[in-house]
Amino acid sequence: MREHGAMVVNALGRRVPSSIADREQVPYRGIDVHRPEGRRWGPTVASAADYPADGDKRLPDLRAALEACGLRDGMTISTHHHLRNGDGVALAALEAAREMGVRDLMWFPSASFPCHAPVTELMDDGTVHHIEGSMNGPLGAYCSAGRMRGMGVLRSHGGRWQAIQDGEVKIDVAVIAAPTADPFGNATGSRGPSACGSINFALADSLYAEKVIVVTDNLVPFPCIPWQVQGNNVDYVVEVESIGDPAKIISGTTRITRSPDRLRTAEMIARMIRDAGILRDGFSFQAGAGGIALAFVGFLKEMMREAKVRARFVRGGSTRYLVDLLQEGLTDYILDGQTFDLAGVESIAGDPRHVPTSPFTSYNHHGKGNFASMVDVAVLGATEVDLNFNANVVTHSDGRLLHGIGGWQNCLFSRCTVLAVPSFRDRLPVIVDEVTTITGPGELVDVVATERGIAINPRREDLLDALAGSDLPIRPLEEIKAEVEALCGGAPERPAITDDPVAVIKWVDGTVIDTVYRVESSSPFGS
Amino acid sequence: MREHGAMVVNALGRRVPSSIADREQVPYRGIDVHRPEGRRWGPTVASAADYPADGDKRLPDLRAALEACGLRDGMTISTHHHLRNGDGVALAALEAAREMGVRDLMWFPSASFPCHAPVTELMDDGTVHHIEGSMNGPLGAYCSAGRMRGMGVLRSHGGRWQAIQDGEVKIDVAVIAAPTADPFGNATGSRGPSACGSINFALADSLYAEKVIVVTDNLVPFPCIPWQVQGNNVDYVVEVESIGDPAKIISGTTRITRSPDRLRTAEMIARMIRDAGILRDGFSFQAGAGGIALAFVGFLKEMMREAKVRARFVRGGSTRYLVDLLQEGLTDYILDGQTFDLAGVESIAGDPRHVPTSPFTSYNHHGKGNFASMVDVAVLGATEVDLNFNANVVTHSDGRLLHGIGGWQNCLFSRCTVLAVPSFRDRLPVIVDEVTTITGPGELVDVVATERGIAINPRREDLLDALAGSDLPIRPLEEIKAEVEALCGGAPERPAITDDPVAVIKWVDGTVIDTVYRVESSSPFGS
Repeated sequence: MREHGAMVVNALGRRVPSSIADREQVPYRGIDVHRPEGRRWGPTVASAADYPADGDKRLPDLRAALEACGLRDGMTISTHHHLRNGDGVALAALEAAREMGVRDLMWFPSASFPCHAPVTELMDDGTVHHIEGSMNGPLGAYCSAGRMRGMGVLRSHGGRWQAIQDGEVKIDVAVIAAPTADPFGNATGSRGPSACGSINFALADSLYAEKVIVVTDNLVPFPCIPWQVQGNNVDYVVEVESIGDPAKIISGTTRITRSPDRLRTAEMIARMIRDAGILRDGFSFQAGAGGIALAFVGFLKEMMREAKVRARFVRGGSTRYLVDLLQEGLTDYILDGQTFDLAGVESIAGDPRHVPTSPFTSYNHHGKGNFASMVDVAVLGATEVDLNFNANVVTHSDGRLLHGIGGWQNCLFSRCTVLAVPSFRDRLPVIVDEVTTITGPGELVDVVATERGIAINPRREDLLDALAGSDLPIRPLEEIKAEVEALCGGAPERPAITDDPVAVIKWVDGTVIDTVYRVESSSPFGS
Repeated sequence: MREHGAMVVNALGRRVPSSIADREQVPYRGIDVHRPEGRRWGPTVASAADYPADGDKRLPDLRAALEACGLRDGMTISTHHHLRNGDGVALAALEAAREMGVRDLMWFPSASFPCHAPVTELMDDGTVHHIEGSMNGPLGAYCSAGRMRGMGVLRSHGGRWQAIQDGEVKIDVAVIAAPTADPFGNATGSRGPSACGSINFALADSLYAEKVIVVTDNLVPFPCIPWQVQGNNVDYVVEVESIGDPAKIISGTTRITRSPDRLRTAEMIARMIRDAGILRDGFSFQAGAGGIALAFVGFLKEMMREAKVRARFVRGGSTRYLVDLLQEGLTDYILDGQTFDLAGVESIAGDPRHVPTSPFTSYNHHGKGNFASMVDVAVLGATEVDLNFNANVVTHSDGRLLHGIGGWQNCLFSRCTVLAVPSFRDRLPVIVDEVTTITGPGELVDVVATERGIAINPRREDLLDALAGSDLPIRPLEEIKAEVEALCGGAPERPAITDDPVAVIKWVDGTVIDTVYRVESSSPFGS
């Protein structure tokens, strides 16, 4: 059960397992210290002679396709998360595997959502052995409680690509939910009743998996244009009534926070970007779909208009706020990893300046560079930050694993990474002596922005100099921390965490940056 | 010199070398008999840590880039041919290698043109050891005369992808001429003063080569949109004054043949397609940019209008004749491998229904299917056809290697492959007892169309039945052959060919289908 080798101490002083099951692990060695070895993975070479000449790869249902793929005990099955909490395909695939009597699968989603909670039952009954991928909410709680038989492995979006291309994770069967596809397997997320924008989180799966199944509820005659996944990599196509609940796949609209504290934080970040001289013609930024990030985009937009500044590109996750920038001529391009609302979906389908990107393009650390390090500003969140600017996005202060990494680690490589956090949550200070789980090293965190002021990483003397004359509340992180502790009645208590590892956190280069431990708790999710 | 193992007889009865240098060869075994083994090749895994964080990969010139790539004796250097006879980059790269004192390179172009004739000097002086790729005109003559030190290996466009992805050919340095690129290496052929439409013949090179150099005369700020080659696969970017001669890269216009015989052949093919019931809503076809093929498109277009039939897709090489179909609503899509004229370039740059395809998409036999087998009709050429419908596109009847394969072998997999040929050239009959070099097996050739009538492969009883009531001059191939021989004064003399192999012809699956031998001749090219 959760076999692992001796715990060793990595370059951040965190204890991490030297091996997981029979796979040796490299402890985190520092930013840009570790170098990969070997060649990119390749799946078995196929022959067109084994595929229908007329291009029709349809099979009647998912079970038939999984059987045709030779799914068997102990294999790895992957899915993507572009359908978010509306996804009807990942669970259907795992349930079909259960029907087939297959056991001990490793499920390898690009992320999981509350709709995937029933996978806990499939872990209880032995169909699924463990999950490597984000485990949000109920799945994270299940893992935290030590109920998963195998060790969880969390990777960033870029780290997932890296692990696949390096052959660290070998996908036996990829199941790709496609809002539109043709019988050959060409598939796109940009069209169809369940349109989600892009399906590029499934791109690595389509390129490197041994067998690939495309599942769609909108079959069109060959060719499906555009193709985000190429039929030349696909083995079987399954037509279903519905791949999910469109209302939960895409929100109709995204909404800016109304919290005065969060609005204040968002505005301070925008002012900081302006005052530091980062807001200039040709600049770029990335902001997620969270409340503060969206508000930040709103404030920045006003400043761009005022200063008559045009961005060269902005990074999605896209929303109508980014689409507005594009349509108003305030940015040349949106480079988009995933699409969060209807405005985003319409734009990516119809505007050639709104370009879908893959985790390879955006984030893969084992490529010849990637886009993340060329972004001028990234505004991100965190659950905890410590005085070394190390940050946590996966666990809460009670030790429980409740979030995935997403592109967070990858975005830390931007030229100016801002963590926008409330100074406390539920009366628990967010700035702590030591984060529960290091998800990103403080060297890469340039700014921590709270409603009580902005702390700049002392390593960024250039940024401190640039902001010397600013009237922004720039304060040492220690000072903000002390103020919040006084308000909350002291530092948070250390949670009751065991020394029994349940999951590891990979850094972007495949090394292990930290460990998540079993929590003894009577959490609402934990039993 | 041109080391090879014992000659063995393949499934078509042709003698082929069992090995070339130290690489074992598989003799052709029949259509769809041979199956590949092993995994797809992968280049050495890179790390973003070794590339500039700001994405600026520029070096001052080609030599600096080749040095940075570590180019050394015996390596393989690849180029693409989208700049056709206007290409200024391939030769510049090889000449830079000579300046560096590097010797014995294998040059691996996706095709070569008369502008590359000076490579013969680089072979004479030892810089280039041999060529694997099409050898047209002077290069073919050089090879035919036995002057190349290594064995030539000719592959189809799909076969080139197959050889790269299977690790049969390992590219050390890919040099990619790009009409537009950014400093990160994102590159496209669709824009810029030297625009050529697509640069997808370089896609495999960018994915599988150890080192990749992008050379451009139109550098734009990051990001270059669209990107046909991804900067994430690129090591260095070199800006030059000019990548070539735009007038020779793209013809202003393409022109239909004026020869009455060829027009007659083209019209017969179009009528055959109609009469056989292939011309129906949702059908598809591929025709090249040759005179008969273009004329065929013209006749077919009239018939489509008359019958109110709309194609689902047409395959390029695109020209204004295909663009007209698209703009008139006579086809939903152009799926385009390369672009031959200005109308094509404009269309691919601006019309999302005009989609660039790669040899992977279109032709790779070692993928999970490809587009070629889904095409209803392909109209192709040939230098010779024999009574078994075996055909030759690489050598002339005098035995000299003068043409590349292009996508020809791959297109044979269409549902109805028509070879459109004049019945004789220079008083030499084109239909012969035995072709000089089998480039494609007769089983895949459905129709041979000449100005004297149409011969249908007896294997295609369905087609013969469908055309039973047609008033087309459908005749046995033997009959057309006899008529032409009578006219030309007998069958062509067998050329004076030695038994000294100078090149091999690969089939789409990597097996060797035939051998080209040294010719003793006083050809204008041969000395």
